[in-house]
Amino acid sequence: MDDAHPDAGAPSAARRSDRAHVLHSWSAHATFEPLVVTGAEGAYFVDESGRRWLDFSSQLVNANVGHQHPKLIAAIQAQAAKLCTIAPYHANEATSEAARLIAEVAPGDLNRVFFTNGGAEAIENAIRIARLHTGRHKVLTAYRSYHGATALAITATGDARRWASEPGAPGIARFWGPYLYRSPFHAGDEAEECRRALAHLADTLAAEGPHTIAAIVLESVVGSSGVLVPPDGYLRGVRELCDAHGILMIADEVMVGFGRCGAWFAIDRWQVVPDLIAFAKGVNSGYVPLGGVIMRDAVAATFATRPYPGGLTYSGHPLACAAAVACIGIYREENLIERARRLGETVVGPALRAMQARHPSVGDVRGLGMFWALELVRDRATREPLVPFDASGAAWAPMAAFADACKRRGLWPLAIGNRLHLAPPLTIDEDALREGLAIVDEALATADRHCRG
Amino acid sequence: MDDAHPDAGAPSAARRSDRAHVLHSWSAHATFEPLVVTGAEGAYFVDESGRRWLDFSSQLVNANVGHQHPKLIAAIQAQAAKLCTIAPYHANEATSEAARLIAEVAPGDLNRVFFTNGGAEAIENAIRIARLHTGRHKVLTAYRSYHGATALAITATGDARRWASEPGAPGIARFWGPYLYRSPFHAGDEAEECRRALAHLADTLAAEGPHTIAAIVLESVVGSSGVLVPPDGYLRGVRELCDAHGILMIADEVMVGFGRCGAWFAIDRWQVVPDLIAFAKGVNSGYVPLGGVIMRDAVAATFATRPYPGGLTYSGHPLACAAAVACIGIYREENLIERARRLGETVVGPALRAMQARHPSVGDVRGLGMFWALELVRDRATREPLVPFDASGAAWAPMAAFADACKRRGLWPLAIGNRLHLAPPLTIDEDALREGLAIVDEALATADRHCRG
Ligand SMILES: Cc1ncc(COP(=O)(O)O)c(C=O)c1O
Ligand SMILES: Cc1ncc(COP(=O)(O)O)c(C=O)c1O
Repeated sequence: MDDAHPDAGAPSAARRSDRAHVLHSWSAHATFEPLVVTGAEGAYFVDESGRRWLDFSSQLVNANVGHQHPKLIAAIQAQAAKLCTIAPYHANEATSEAARLIAEVAPGDLNRVFFTNGGAEAIENAIRIARLHTGRHKVLTAYRSYHGATALAITATGDARRWASEPGAPGIARFWGPYLYRSPFHAGDEAEECRRALAHLADTLAAEGPHTIAAIVLESVVGSSGVLVPPDGYLRGVRELCDAHGILMIADEVMVGFGRCGAWFAIDRWQVVPDLIAFAKGVNSGYVPLGGVIMRDAVAATFATRPYPGGLTYSGHPLACAAAVACIGIYREENLIERARRLGETVVGPALRAMQARHPSVGDVRGLGMFWALELVRDRATREPLVPFDASGAAWAPMAAFADACKRRGLWPLAIGNRLHLAPPLTIDEDALREGLAIVDEALATADRHCRG
Repeated sequence: MDDAHPDAGAPSAARRSDRAHVLHSWSAHATFEPLVVTGAEGAYFVDESGRRWLDFSSQLVNANVGHQHPKLIAAIQAQAAKLCTIAPYHANEATSEAARLIAEVAPGDLNRVFFTNGGAEAIENAIRIARLHTGRHKVLTAYRSYHGATALAITATGDARRWASEPGAPGIARFWGPYLYRSPFHAGDEAEECRRALAHLADTLAAEGPHTIAAIVLESVVGSSGVLVPPDGYLRGVRELCDAHGILMIADEVMVGFGRCGAWFAIDRWQVVPDLIAFAKGVNSGYVPLGGVIMRDAVAATFATRPYPGGLTYSGHPLACAAAVACIGIYREENLIERARRLGETVVGPALRAMQARHPSVGDVRGLGMFWALELVRDRATREPLVPFDASGAAWAPMAAFADACKRRGLWPLAIGNRLHLAPPLTIDEDALREGLAIVDEALATADRHCRG
C-alpha cells in the first residue's frame, strides 16, 4: 500500500474501493468500517496504518498453520506454475494426492472424498449423499449450530442467521444438544447432561419417525454457537442411535477438523467414527478455497455404478488441493496436532481457569486443543449473559467494549454473542500465546464492570 | 509424473489414488475412467500418456484466457507471497480492486459486489438479495437452464440434474424460454418466437401473481442447456415485464460472462441492464475458485444500514480476487472481448454453417463470440435428435462415438445431450481454431451415419 493511511487524512484506494464496491458477509455496507489488511505472518497480521495484530481468531478459525506459512506458499506457487485449473471430470496429481492424504488421516473406513469450495457446499453434498444412500429425506440438526449459508446449509443451521432465509429447504427437524452451563435438560453434571441429551434425541427421533430420517448432522464440537464440547459418551450415544435406526451420522468438522481440537478430527477425541465428515477451513488453512465430504466405503458404494447427482465447476481444484497436500504435510512435520492438544491442556486451559477465578464476568470456560471460549455473564449466580441472545447495536455494547479493550492492546479477538472464542493459529509460539492470554486477562476488567454481586 | 503411464502397464499413483479416493462430480466412481491431466498451456492440455489435447471446452467453459497464462500465474504467485487468506469482514487491496474493476466492466449502475466461491453460491445469494430487497419470495426460472447444485440453485435449475435433489427449496416456478429450432410456441421465425415467448412469460407471471414474484432468473445466453441465443428483443421484453411489476431481473452470467460471448457480459450484446448479475468462471478463468453477485445501487441500498444476512468464510478471498484483477487486465490488454466477437463472426460461425451445408446430421448452428453449438439430428426434416433427451449409457452411444471421433483426432470436445458445444479459450490462435473446426468437420461423418433420408 503506497497510499496514505487513514490516520493521515485521505482514505487509501483499497479502503475507497472497498467502501464503494464491496458488500461484506453479514454486514451493512454504509456503516461497516473494515480494517484494511496489508500483510500477515505467523500469528500476526498487519493493517494499512501499520498496526500489527496478534491473531486469536485465525480469521474465521481457518488459518490453522498461521499466516503466510512459507511451505504452503511455495506449494501454491509451484502448483500455479504447473496446473491451476482443470475440469472436475479429469484427474490430476494434486487432487488425487489430497484425497489420498485426507482418507489417510480420516477415521475408520472414510476413504472417499467429494471436493467442494467451502463448508456450506460440503454440508449440502453430505446431506444429498445421505438422502440418496438411505432413500430417506428428513435430516435432524441441532439448534445450537452453524452449517453455512446456502439454502440447505442455512436451513440446517440452528442459529439466528437462519431466520432471514426462511422459509428454508424442506426436510429439516431440530433437536437440542448438550450444553451443561445452560442445560436444556436441567442436568446437574456432565454425565447427567449426556444421558438426558441422548434421551431427548431418542424422543425426538421417535416423534419424527426414525425410519424417515436420513441423517443426523452435528458439529463434533459446536463452533460458532459456543465452543460446546460434548460430554464423554454423547457422540458415541448418537452413533448408537444412528446405528439402531439405519440413520447416517454426519460430523460437521468444517471448523473443528484438521487439528483445531488437538486431533485430526474433533470426533477422534472420542474415538467415534461417523459415516460422513464435512470439512473445509483447516484442510488447507483457507489459503485457497476448499471444502469437501469424506464418506465411508459403504456410503461410497451407492455411487459405484450410479452417477452421483451433484457437482460443481471447481470440485477437486488443483491449486486448492495442492495447498491441502502441503498443509497436511505441515501438520505432520511440525507435530501441530499434538502441539495443539498439549498447549490446550498445559497453557490455555489453565490460564483461562485462572481468569475465571479472578474475574466475576467469566461464567464458564470451555474448550480443548486450540479451541476455547470464555462465556461472559453479568451475574455468576443467575448466569445472566453479559449481552442477550442475538444482540446487536446498543445491546451488544458491553461485548464491543470488551473486544475494544483487547484491540487496544493489539489482540484481534473473535467475539460472538456473550463469548470470547479463542482460536489462535496452531503454530503460535508459546510466548505470543501467553502474551495474548495476558491481554484477555487485562481486558476482562472491562467486562467485570457490568457484574452485579 | 514420473510414474509409468497407463499404456505402459501399471496405473500411475495419480490414477490409483483417484480411483481409490475421489468421487467426481456427476459421476460413478467404479466405472469412470478420467484422463489424468499433467499439464496445460494456452489452448492445449496434456495427459499422463503424453497426449496433447486441443481444448474446445475451456474445461467447463471457464478457462477464457487459456491455460497457464503467464501473467495470471505471476499474479497468483505474487499475491500468494503477500496475503493468501483473510476473514471476509476485513478489507484488502486485491478484493477492493477486483470489486472496483468488476463494477467498471459491469453495465449500468451495477456497482457493488458480493463475492462467493463459485456459480451456485452466486445464484443462491442473488436470489436471497432479491427476496430481501423486494420482500417477496417466489422466483421464476427457465426449464432450459442450469444454475448450480446447492439446494436453491439446483431447484432453480430447469434441466434433469435437478430431479435427484427434489423436493427442492420452496418458491420456484418455471417458464419456457425462446428456442426457435424446437419452438415451445410453434413459431416460424425469430421475431415470432420472441413475441410468443414474452407472451408466455407474461401469462405465467399473471398466473403466478406478479406481486408475489421477487425475481426472474435467466441465463442471458442459455449455456449447458444448449447455447440458446435469445432473439433480439427478448431480454428487453423481460426487462420491461420486470419493471412493470417491481420484479428484479437476475442475469446468470456464470458461463457466458467475461468475454465468452464477445462482450463483457452476454446481456451487453442487447444493451439490457439487469438488476443483478451472477458471475464466476471467466472472472478469473477459474485459476482460483471465485464467483459473486453484482448489484445495482438501488438494490445495494437495501443493505446500506441493514446487515446482509448471508456470508461465507472465503467471501472476497484475496488470492482469488488477485487472479480476477489480473484476468480482467488480460482481457483488456489482449483485446480478448473484441477478438472473441470477431472470431465468432468471421471464423467459427461461417465454418459451422458450412458444415451444416455438408453434413445431414447438423440440424442447427447457434452461437456468438466464442460460444457455439451444433445440434445433431437423425433427420433434418423431423428434427429427431441424434440421442434422446437426458440420454445416458447405450442411448447416448451415437454422441459418444462422435466425441470419440473428435478425441482420436486430438480435440477435446464438450458434448452435451445431442449437441457439441464449442467453447475454446478466447486466446486460441487462429490456426489452432481452424484446425479444431476441421477436426469437428471430419468427425461429423460419424454422426452422419445415423441419418435417414
Ligand atoms: C461448523 C461449520 N460448518 C459450516 C460452515 C460454513 O462454511 P463456509 O463459510 O466455508 O461455507 C462453517 C463456517 O464457519 C462452520 O463453522
Ligand atoms: C449458467 C451457470 N450458472 C451456474 C453454474 C454453477 O456454477 P458452479 O459450478 O461454479 O457452482 C454454472 C456451472 O456450469 C452455470 O453454467
